[in-house]
Amino acid sequence: MASREISQAVIRRLPRYYRYLGELLESGVERISSNELSKRMKVTASQIRQDLNNFGGFGQQGYGYNVKYLYTEIGKILGLNEKHKFVIIGAGNLGQALANYAAFENRGFVLKGLFDVNPRLAGLTIRGVEIRMMDELKDFVKENDIEIGVLTIPKTKAVEVANLLVDNGVKAIWNFAHTDLNLPDNIIVENVHLSESLMRLSYNITRYNEEHEGK
Amino acid sequence: MASREISQAVIRRLPRYYRYLGELLESGVERISSNELSKRMKVTASQIRQDLNNFGGFGQQGYGYNVKYLYTEIGKILGLNEKHKFVIIGAGNLGQALANYAAFENRGFVLKGLFDVNPRLAGLTIRGVEIRMMDELKDFVKENDIEIGVLTIPKTKAVEVANLLVDNGVKAIWNFAHTDLNLPDNIIVENVHLSESLMRLSYNITRYNEEHEGK
Repeated sequence: MASREISQAVIRRLPRYYRYLGELLESGVERISSNELSKRMKVTASQIRQDLNNFGGFGQQGYGYNVKYLYTEIGKILGLNEKHKFVIIGAGNLGQALANYAAFENRGFVLKGLFDVNPRLAGLTIRGVEIRMMDELKDFVKENDIEIGVLTIPKTKAVEVANLLVDNGVKAIWNFAHTDLNLPDNIIVENVHLSESLMRLSYNITRYNEEHEGK
Repeated sequence: MASREISQAVIRRLPRYYRYLGELLESGVERISSNELSKRMKVTASQIRQDLNNFGGFGQQGYGYNVKYLYTEIGKILGLNEKHKFVIIGAGNLGQALANYAAFENRGFVLKGLFDVNPRLAGLTIRGVEIRMMDELKDFVKENDIEIGVLTIPKTKAVEVANLLVDNGVKAIWNFAHTDLNLPDNIIVENVHLSESLMRLSYNITRYNEEHEGK
């Protein structure tokens, strides 16, 4: 199925559909109507019908969607049936949390290496993957055809490390460092800026408190 | 300054302005023009002028913005000058990473407690904050006027724990569990769905590979 026929707006919503369909599968649900899915996802049923129509007519009137089929098809569009080799740079708490994150494997992401500057971590393994020192990073990335680098390092080092990765063949960065990377346009960057998420929370709480104090 | 006069679209962009202005401050920049900021942030200069005009005329023609003033004012709107007490539920790697996250303190977030089900963690401290067992959570939240709960627990427990927090006075949840919480409308929920972020990355890499294989 050619993914480029599907609009970007739909693509952005697909991970959420995928997550909900996965939860339905886990709880043994085989079929679901757009109305039922609408209630769970808090999206209108017509939005759901419109979105899922993109994948051909596998919602039958009065019969609902085949959960497993839809889950599998959306997974294919998201590329979750393909394998992507990745490394994590920064083996602190966050790096270790991500290394232990089981969903990676289900999504086709294969952890090949962890890197850190702390010599006390050298040689330790997490889920069977060795923690290496930064001076090995360049050769490792080249020799192992690493596609993705996950950055869980301080922002002061992030740009330099991202450039090293990209210069050695990495195509995509999952960036947890609190800075923007300014990489070439053809490099895929998915930012997780936790500090911005925290500030949105702060803003909303402040507004909540103002409203409840009747200011 | 009354924050409710500012549009939601501007509000959503504020954390990013705040981050950039913070970086400028750290590197000793006192004034910056909208053109210069535009280049760094990859936002148009007119967008920047329009956004920052919301905070009154402190951009002077030919003289630029006072970085520190703007940083402080935006911080106030985001409520970063106020204190918010929070607890982290789930003291695994991710919970510990967040507990060690220094930006919390700079943003007015005060960590009061960490909770887990693992008895081996009981009594350990992280940055001086004790890890407690889950059966203490309810009373602790009530007695300490906790405003925010950070959930870094498996999705199977997330809804139950979120309800317990909300029933005991918590106003906001920073949710890292891979599920939606369906809390009352007046509760603030800021989701960080890492698995969805990962799927967007996967989709973009798959598309990248298709394009480069000339399919």
